[in-house]
Amino acid sequence: MDEFSFINSIKPKFYQQSSLLKGIGDDAAVFRSSMDIVTAVDTFVEDVHFSRSTMEPYHIGYRALGANISDLAAMGASPSFYLVSIVIPKNWIQEELSQIYLGMDDLASKYHMDIIGGDTVSGKQLTISITVIGYTNTNKARCRQHAKEGDIVFVTGTLGDSQAGFHILTNENNRYIDQDFYIGRHRKPEPRVAFAQALESLERVSLNDVSDGIANEASEIAEASNVSIVLSENDIPVSRSFNQFTYEQQYQWKLSGGEDFELLGTVAKYDWDVVKKAAEQTNTQLTIIGNVIEENKHPVYIEDNDVRKVLKKSGYTHLK
Amino acid sequence: MDEFSFINSIKPKFYQQSSLLKGIGDDAAVFRSSMDIVTAVDTFVEDVHFSRSTMEPYHIGYRALGANISDLAAMGASPSFYLVSIVIPKNWIQEELSQIYLGMDDLASKYHMDIIGGDTVSGKQLTISITVIGYTNTNKARCRQHAKEGDIVFVTGTLGDSQAGFHILTNENNRYIDQDFYIGRHRKPEPRVAFAQALESLERVSLNDVSDGIANEASEIAEASNVSIVLSENDIPVSRSFNQFTYEQQYQWKLSGGEDFELLGTVAKYDWDVVKKAAEQTNTQLTIIGNVIEENKHPVYIEDNDVRKVLKKSGYTHLK
Repeated sequence: MDEFSFINSIKPKFYQQSSLLKGIGDDAAVFRSSMDIVTAVDTFVEDVHFSRSTMEPYHIGYRALGANISDLAAMGASPSFYLVSIVIPKNWIQEELSQIYLGMDDLASKYHMDIIGGDTVSGKQLTISITVIGYTNTNKARCRQHAKEGDIVFVTGTLGDSQAGFHILTNENNRYIDQDFYIGRHRKPEPRVAFAQALESLERVSLNDVSDGIANEASEIAEASNVSIVLSENDIPVSRSFNQFTYEQQYQWKLSGGEDFELLGTVAKYDWDVVKKAAEQTNTQLTIIGNVIEENKHPVYIEDNDVRKVLKKSGYTHLK
Repeated sequence: MDEFSFINSIKPKFYQQSSLLKGIGDDAAVFRSSMDIVTAVDTFVEDVHFSRSTMEPYHIGYRALGANISDLAAMGASPSFYLVSIVIPKNWIQEELSQIYLGMDDLASKYHMDIIGGDTVSGKQLTISITVIGYTNTNKARCRQHAKEGDIVFVTGTLGDSQAGFHILTNENNRYIDQDFYIGRHRKPEPRVAFAQALESLERVSLNDVSDGIANEASEIAEASNVSIVLSENDIPVSRSFNQFTYEQQYQWKLSGGEDFELLGTVAKYDWDVVKKAAEQTNTQLTIIGNVIEENKHPVYIEDNDVRKVLKKSGYTHLK
């Protein structure tokens, strides 16, 4: 199959987004909308971001698009379009590549997203670069710099699961409780689109998706907002069988494991009920894990039994 | 320099596009416009699409963005934003990477384009994937499927120069006339944005940029429009010193050399004056090279002294 036949094979039979004027098949795609337009790009390289030993081709596609959609979720945006650039080495066969696109397509379908462009080139290392485009209502894009002193800090879901899944996949001789659950969280992350959109009525909420670990994401919010964030270690939500891992693993994975694609946010206390309601409506686990304080020497602190330590971006802690 | 410092170093000091609400520094960028939005992605891999033996890092960036802007030009769009995903191998040093971004930045400045996002990852092979975003007025995006029987076929500039430049760069022992000109056309292509935009008043024009050679581009227009195109071999414009190359080289390069990033188009005869005026206004060389006929057995034919041959996408010809 040549490049053109392959592109034809991934070209949608029909498009779902009514704002699309021209999809795949010209020099560029064309769309039109009066909404605010949100766009981001994320790239995944074989043996850097994923490996065939822990991922089927289908999961590689699913997770790559999932990570991108998570960026849109963190902006409160509704996912609409994606463009895929793929570098294909000789050792990848047609059927595997089709599985990558199927993984993307399955996740995209959940959001009625259309693939509207891309590029297919050859190279030494499988590389998938995805550009996503989404919409928000006017001035409703959720940014990092909106945290304020006194805000509640919350997070969706549970943290550390993806890293636990990766650990299980790379230690196959051992048996673990709920191992399919953890592996699923690693291979098929579900971005928190519905929850973020259910926050729409809020005037102000800061949001970040947990792609690099909560220590890093909290730091980004704190720095962008010129505040500091105090997290409560014991309140950080983990899965019920997470205690089967060593204390060090739990600590590392929940604070800096990353790739859980949960949402970390801060909101004014008087708006907390709106956030709680959004979580109920969208069946989303929601936990208060800290609060926002005046800008301090360090962006993020973590408290355990009233001992406050500095939390570095990497998840490393030391006494204040 | 770590990833974050590098991203900071390429982050613009200020943005030029007034439609931009949020640039680099959050999970995604945000913009707003009532115009039609045009977007495309193109990827360039070291030793596949370019080589350090014929390109300085600056040119790699310039040409990669140039090829992308050319896609916007072929849609009649005004270039506005770009996002850059780059895979960086260990053998590329910081200064070279900065030069790549400088090359992009210099070209982007000509169009007041803003870089609004990207990703920086490590890998085995330098890979640059650029997403461009541009605007057209409502329903003014120029597509391939608008050619009609009786149309004039035209092309901007001269063809084959980029391949001639590449030939000169890879045959350094020889001397050629105008060699800086040809090398410049290869390393720093100038997309035909102004010319395409000057066609704005036209109700209908089909456009394609010459990225893969005119034989291929003409074929794409013909197939998308359900017509056939007849090109006149002697009318295909080449540079004045192009006859220093062998007849075979000239023939091959002008028909399928590609990467000249000129515009190939078709327009109704009664609109020809508008096209001519657009060329004059934007100081663009413009040549009539053929005409559109009713859909025939093959999409593209080429005529030389009244002998009509079939022109394959690859530039290969055989008698009808």
